[in-house]
Amino acid sequence: MEKNYVIGIDIGGTNTVFGVVDARGTILYNGSIETGIYADVNDYVSALSAGLKELIEKAGGPDAIKGIGVGAPNGNYFNGCIEFAPNLPWKGKVELARLISEKTYQLPVTLTNDANAAAIGEMAYGVARGMKDFIEITLGTGLGSGVVCGGTLVYGHDGFAGELGHVIVRQNGRMCGCGREGCLEAYASATGVARTAREFLTNRTDKSLLRELDPEKITSKNVYEAAVKGDELAKEVFEFSGNILGEALANFIAFTSPEAIVLFGGLTRAGDFILDPVQRSMEENVLKIYKGKTKLLVSQLKESDAAVLGASALGWETKGG
Amino acid sequence: MEKNYVIGIDIGGTNTVFGVVDARGTILYNGSIETGIYADVNDYVSALSAGLKELIEKAGGPDAIKGIGVGAPNGNYFNGCIEFAPNLPWKGKVELARLISEKTYQLPVTLTNDANAAAIGEMAYGVARGMKDFIEITLGTGLGSGVVCGGTLVYGHDGFAGELGHVIVRQNGRMCGCGREGCLEAYASATGVARTAREFLTNRTDKSLLRELDPEKITSKNVYEAAVKGDELAKEVFEFSGNILGEALANFIAFTSPEAIVLFGGLTRAGDFILDPVQRSMEENVLKIYKGKTKLLVSQLKESDAAVLGASALGWETKGG
Repeated sequence: MEKNYVIGIDIGGTNTVFGVVDARGTILYNGSIETGIYADVNDYVSALSAGLKELIEKAGGPDAIKGIGVGAPNGNYFNGCIEFAPNLPWKGKVELARLISEKTYQLPVTLTNDANAAAIGEMAYGVARGMKDFIEITLGTGLGSGVVCGGTLVYGHDGFAGELGHVIVRQNGRMCGCGREGCLEAYASATGVARTAREFLTNRTDKSLLRELDPEKITSKNVYEAAVKGDELAKEVFEFSGNILGEALANFIAFTSPEAIVLFGGLTRAGDFILDPVQRSMEENVLKIYKGKTKLLVSQLKESDAAVLGASALGWETKGG
Repeated sequence: MEKNYVIGIDIGGTNTVFGVVDARGTILYNGSIETGIYADVNDYVSALSAGLKELIEKAGGPDAIKGIGVGAPNGNYFNGCIEFAPNLPWKGKVELARLISEKTYQLPVTLTNDANAAAIGEMAYGVARGMKDFIEITLGTGLGSGVVCGGTLVYGHDGFAGELGHVIVRQNGRMCGCGREGCLEAYASATGVARTAREFLTNRTDKSLLRELDPEKITSKNVYEAAVKGDELAKEVFEFSGNILGEALANFIAFTSPEAIVLFGGLTRAGDFILDPVQRSMEENVLKIYKGKTKLLVSQLKESDAAVLGASALGWETKGG
């Protein structure tokens, strides 16, 4: 029987979503379970596997499935483990790929972190189709990244390459969740934008629609909505974040000289408010030999589907199955 | 006939050196010509080719040669051209690989920039033998780099990846030769060390052996010699440079998570004066998941041989021949 389908699983702190995907990137069947309610990973995998088996039957049984790809925070491609993921209920090192395979018809399971999965999905089904060198930057609560060189995702010697959110961009800069100061993620992420807004509101006295909100609860969405209404301070918040991100992207270009940098995730919904300063700052700061060569693109994958699609793309890479 | 040998050519602004190399990395025969005296690239290639042919005859004729590798400033792997190299006499884009091949028995010629050649040489014959993920940093007049991921040198979409000397490490920092401010090369290179020494001598009043020298003529070698004699200011010059380089390496690790970073070139002769602060600063600044994982190594290749060896290693990669 031809193995026409793959399965993608995206593990988030709250929910785990999964789907059966065909070679064109269409999600044929999908499902989800809650992640956080399973204190024991074996119970979690049992529930997940039950959900997967339902979809697999609809797709024609296990013989129709080439492989399963999993995107998970702190997922390690080399050993199939999740290692010390702060937002997941299971502590230490969890052999997730093996567990899922054992309970799901012994199908081959490949695992990586969510940003790497997004990059692979972009290459298989998105705006990076046909590209051999690009960098995917996911702008969500944090900043994740997947680096593709010569058509291959860069995993590094230990499976943990591509933590570009934790490149230090400002000496003695903002505290980051990682315990260090000045990380890119502390500026260029939904959280970073909200922090910038709070800083601006504290340090400045000009009027802003954002002053009507509880500063501690301001989100990047609030900043966007204010910017749309013409709020100058809100627009400058995006300018500030976009500037720093553009500087960082210029440095990234000097590393792997990618054909494109693809931005993905919630913050890209701020559109030109964030994209214009990123583009301008990137071109201003990039070394002359790279000027005008690297495209800045925004992912066109539907955000609700992209995580599953990205993970599923790993399924095509499996050797077994 | 078995193709047991390759040829390596290292093109510098002053001299071009070349040699016949065997699979173990032994340079069997070598020669050199001046680079700067040939205003016309055709005359240069004729002289070079004459020198190569002499060596090739000694090695058993062209049938014994698998390929020719060339390391050259601004050399582009994809098209075999040197493009706008500021220190070479030929302006614009020069199809060097084609020209050399045409005049040298049509042997296959592969070209890349000198730092990439150093990385490939390190992988073939040096401390990076057997490694699939490492970064080579050449610390000479400038700072060059070659990035290896998954056993393959990263060329990027245009052949110009790996310009880590031009990552901006200080906002509004030192002017760099590239026209921008704050590039790593302006701090962490022989020239950068000399600049730091001049800055320290101007901005400070403490005694130093370096005050006996004409400040405009101070070299990194002078700084090293003073440090050996216990000069505190000289030691702090290396601390300063090493610190900044270590910070930058910590950021590089977040990109490709290499097994090792290999330092090569003149500045490494300053030994622990520079290496200790680099190592300390790298470990202090690196993201927790990478701590203690990436080795900092110093190339053991003889500097006079390394450029030719590195270029020659490209010769083994050629498909033709």
